[in-house]
Amino acid sequence: MKHQVFLLKKLIEFIEYKSYMMRRWSIILPARAGSGHTTSCLSAADIVAVLFFYAMRYDPYNYENPDNDRFILSKGHAAPILYAVWRELGLLTDAQMLTYRQFDSMLEGHPTRRFAYAESATGSLGIGLSIGVGTALCAKLDKRNYRTYVLMGDSESSEGSVWEAVQLAAHYKLDNVICIIDVNNLGQSTETMLDYDIKRYMDIGTAFGWQVFEVDGHNVADLIEVIDKAHKVVGKPVMIIAKTVKGYGVDSVAGKEGFHGKAFDAAQEKLALEQLKNNFFDAARYDINSFDWKPHMPQVSGLAYGGANVIIEIPLCDYKKGEMVATRKAYGTALALLGDVCDAVVSLDAEVKNSTYAEIFESVHPDRFFQCFVAEQNMVGMGIGFDRRGRIPFISTFSSFFSRAHDQIRMAAISTSALRLVGSHCGVSIGQDGPSQMGLEDIALFRCLPGSIVLYPCDAVSTHKLVEQMARYSDGLSYLRTTRMATPVLYDNDEQFPVGGCKVLKKSDNDGACIVGAGVTVHEALKAYEILLKQNVFVSVIDLYSVKPLDVATLIFVARASSNIVITVEDHYPQGGIGQAVLDALRNQNITIHSLAVNYLPRSGKPEELLAFEEIDAAAIVKTVLDTIAVIRS
Amino acid sequence: MKHQVFLLKKLIEFIEYKSYMMRRWSIILPARAGSGHTTSCLSAADIVAVLFFYAMRYDPYNYENPDNDRFILSKGHAAPILYAVWRELGLLTDAQMLTYRQFDSMLEGHPTRRFAYAESATGSLGIGLSIGVGTALCAKLDKRNYRTYVLMGDSESSEGSVWEAVQLAAHYKLDNVICIIDVNNLGQSTETMLDYDIKRYMDIGTAFGWQVFEVDGHNVADLIEVIDKAHKVVGKPVMIIAKTVKGYGVDSVAGKEGFHGKAFDAAQEKLALEQLKNNFFDAARYDINSFDWKPHMPQVSGLAYGGANVIIEIPLCDYKKGEMVATRKAYGTALALLGDVCDAVVSLDAEVKNSTYAEIFESVHPDRFFQCFVAEQNMVGMGIGFDRRGRIPFISTFSSFFSRAHDQIRMAAISTSALRLVGSHCGVSIGQDGPSQMGLEDIALFRCLPGSIVLYPCDAVSTHKLVEQMARYSDGLSYLRTTRMATPVLYDNDEQFPVGGCKVLKKSDNDGACIVGAGVTVHEALKAYEILLKQNVFVSVIDLYSVKPLDVATLIFVARASSNIVITVEDHYPQGGIGQAVLDALRNQNITIHSLAVNYLPRSGKPEELLAFEEIDAAAIVKTVLDTIAVIRS
Repeated sequence: MKHQVFLLKKLIEFIEYKSYMMRRWSIILPARAGSGHTTSCLSAADIVAVLFFYAMRYDPYNYENPDNDRFILSKGHAAPILYAVWRELGLLTDAQMLTYRQFDSMLEGHPTRRFAYAESATGSLGIGLSIGVGTALCAKLDKRNYRTYVLMGDSESSEGSVWEAVQLAAHYKLDNVICIIDVNNLGQSTETMLDYDIKRYMDIGTAFGWQVFEVDGHNVADLIEVIDKAHKVVGKPVMIIAKTVKGYGVDSVAGKEGFHGKAFDAAQEKLALEQLKNNFFDAARYDINSFDWKPHMPQVSGLAYGGANVIIEIPLCDYKKGEMVATRKAYGTALALLGDVCDAVVSLDAEVKNSTYAEIFESVHPDRFFQCFVAEQNMVGMGIGFDRRGRIPFISTFSSFFSRAHDQIRMAAISTSALRLVGSHCGVSIGQDGPSQMGLEDIALFRCLPGSIVLYPCDAVSTHKLVEQMARYSDGLSYLRTTRMATPVLYDNDEQFPVGGCKVLKKSDNDGACIVGAGVTVHEALKAYEILLKQNVFVSVIDLYSVKPLDVATLIFVARASSNIVITVEDHYPQGGIGQAVLDALRNQNITIHSLAVNYLPRSGKPEELLAFEEIDAAAIVKTVLDTIAVIRS
Repeated sequence: MKHQVFLLKKLIEFIEYKSYMMRRWSIILPARAGSGHTTSCLSAADIVAVLFFYAMRYDPYNYENPDNDRFILSKGHAAPILYAVWRELGLLTDAQMLTYRQFDSMLEGHPTRRFAYAESATGSLGIGLSIGVGTALCAKLDKRNYRTYVLMGDSESSEGSVWEAVQLAAHYKLDNVICIIDVNNLGQSTETMLDYDIKRYMDIGTAFGWQVFEVDGHNVADLIEVIDKAHKVVGKPVMIIAKTVKGYGVDSVAGKEGFHGKAFDAAQEKLALEQLKNNFFDAARYDINSFDWKPHMPQVSGLAYGGANVIIEIPLCDYKKGEMVATRKAYGTALALLGDVCDAVVSLDAEVKNSTYAEIFESVHPDRFFQCFVAEQNMVGMGIGFDRRGRIPFISTFSSFFSRAHDQIRMAAISTSALRLVGSHCGVSIGQDGPSQMGLEDIALFRCLPGSIVLYPCDAVSTHKLVEQMARYSDGLSYLRTTRMATPVLYDNDEQFPVGGCKVLKKSDNDGACIVGAGVTVHEALKAYEILLKQNVFVSVIDLYSVKPLDVATLIFVARASSNIVITVEDHYPQGGIGQAVLDALRNQNITIHSLAVNYLPRSGKPEELLAFEEIDAAAIVKTVLDTIAVIRS
């Protein structure tokens, strides 16, 4: 017992030394870079030191060990403290540290995946806990014992996404997630909403069903004690409210407003380091050799690490040509089959499983289906966690409601997360529910993100095949847009649908124009084709199932053979949609391009009324073809 | 006293009759339309009846009376109950009611502003309370006594935006907002996360600082009693947890899963109306003439209604050509001056006022500045409320973080709300903070929304003038994109910047190409102009400060005079950005268009390094011009 007390004392001294060193880096890095968030690091230094040098069980020399505890820096602006702890673990050199915020450095202003020890990019506030909830759920699914630690700032606790994550973690009783809130009471420009009302934080966390502890965030001994308590909690997630001081340790800034995101100049840096040394007298003189720190290595589960790298093939589907099947239903069916052949696949749904048809997956793989309730931001954030831990997350809701999570999707793109996002109920063709339920900007929202692919099938067979393609695409985001109404099956079950392809459905030697559709407008284009045929007007028809990337070569080839006239038609707003994508791909080719899209604020009505109102139905296509040909001929 | 008891009894009977009639409509409307959310209306009928026939002080015959209490149906899918109460108030005819969900009807599937008695479009869940918090803050600002009632579903309480609104309402001690949660424990496809755990709801609300009451949501007498209690609360907002049964009153569906969003067919409708009649025996036989209901008219304040319709002119600015001023700072300066001349202007900021420079407005108009903390969704939702109540809300944060609120912005567009949104820190030119802080998809996100305008000034003078233009634009959303770094002033202080215009900065009789820039790339284009001039290559340069709408005529005119070659350059991802907007505007004109944009995932670094890395700097422009001209000449 006496020896244990002695060891604990030595450990505390060691951690105090480490947090002193980490504070030094938090001053030096921004000062040398000319920008950065020193004071936000100074409030978090002791917490991070205790996590990495006491709480966490992990192999620092093998970050990807699947049984490692995980750390997510939700307050991403405190990046230097993350870099500092890895420096103090010996995994970064001083020279590397001093590249902070430089163009070629992996140590960016806010962490990105270019830093090998970041779980994901952070820096847009309030996302880290969602990622952590995903990680923790993944651990439960994998039957691994690792814990996930999330460090949040107090400012970001006003983000609703945080409370989405808090609710879901309680729902799933995730006792393997520990969220520490660094309550330094100062935001970027003013005091936080709750100031130092620690009781309020505790009451809120408790009310949501978490086990909540408070702690002095600058007392290493207290932090160790609270971690011990946290580790004993069973059946609920743990929140630790750490009372801290922004800028702690440097008298000139500690607890003062006006120093958020401010780097010291050379003179201030010198002064700050002196003040720090005075305030941490013992730690600054600590003999690093007096304690032989060793990491708590993870409990090795021996389990294999995910299954994401297998070659994924779903059995062929068995649809009949002409059969009426909604692509959203074909999605659910394909996903269930994908789940059969690939254990890594998980399905997340925002309480619309009977609309997205994720319920078909749930019915056969209930253990890998996660109900995320009506909280799209957290669902997408969780996906980042699942992806990072080796799973293949398919995430579904109405296409319109992904707009709710666009910031999380943007951060996933920056993190190069391979999220598979599936949006149902796209376009005015949903009909009577009206504009709030219509996805009309989703193509624009997904196209604009780096590394994304955007797929938009018009029938069940292509949907089936594209789900397989999405599972295989691991370089970034993939988005599948599905339709509410049933549409006829167009393709043979063994047809191939590579990403970046398109299908030429109609073509003759005498085409006056090429009609490019996707989803529901493919069927309108085919109707237009028949009407025009009766008038002896020939057109080619393309199913542009891959909206990003585009099959530029085929588009140009068919356009050339169709009198150099292209007419795009889409159930989406014009800006950022299919028309502008095609326009971009065919620029400077002397091809005349007309685009039909949703140009009027839509409303409730029958699908066919709305397609007509927006001038994206067969009649509108026929009129555009005839008008265009008339102009060319005149 | 005895007479009062008698009157109360009569009132209760009257309201029970009204809620019976409203339930009938909730069955009939979806049944006739073939779709709709009957069961969600049946759980809310008694609550809505008590609000409109007891709680609210308003003039039903003058909806726009500025002192009226306000009602916001956050659970927008229960639209029939809203239509039903206005029918029962005598403001809609039976014939109008039966147009529900038809193409020409104002009674859409989810309420929109086409229905005169809707505060805003709803239907994307979790937004109503934010609108209500905006309305309530507006009432406080206007010193009006009206209250705002928000009816939420329990499913939507998982949306984080709700808890953003809850936090802010508590922060501002909004005792003029009453939020009723209709806890029927059934979501769309499954039970809600909290089921019937009323205590949990109450604990959470209480922990956040609200006064919380519980009530039987189907007992009119109890509902009246709880409203009386709510009206007595001072200094904090009120939450009423109403325990209800989904489908209440119709035995075949009451409390059962599988009936969300399901309309009855003709036979089921008949049966349901019979069951309803049996269950509400007294109400169904009530003599409407036995009680002479009169609305509680509002306390007339006599205050004028807002000031949004005045002609707005800001004094000229006083910048010197060549002076270095960040457009974000020019924004704050202009907004403060706008506040001087226009009382209707309010400023909402998401805890980045020292970055967006909204702090300049705050410093002179602290009463009209609202700190919304780090909660962008709620901030935008509040804006809808402010706009609806006659204010001119300028809403600012980092351009990247508006992606957090895209669903609210989308709903504002559907509501034709005149929100003025100002996003700072756009593009890679912010430099070291890295990609999470860079707005690179904001133009795409705002361009794609109906009725929006997108403005992107390159200097302080144009910023100043465009703020004035935004204040004047009341037909929909306006977005202003501002830059972090200081840029030189280009224009005279009296220059005009109409929406839909552009500025031709350089032009000769011998231009080989036209360079189109906006914001920071205007300055790169001007640098490129000088470099090319030294090589005897002449180019025209356009400042495209109005990205939507575009000055198509000038673009074509200048392109024609510039060898029919246009080179666009933007600090934004290519998809949905300026290049594709110009491409669309100049389609089919035989103009060769090249577009430079942010094509590589950006990172931390110096602004000039990043502009070079993304090939959107002067050097890249020069290279593109020379390459293009060489191709044309060869």
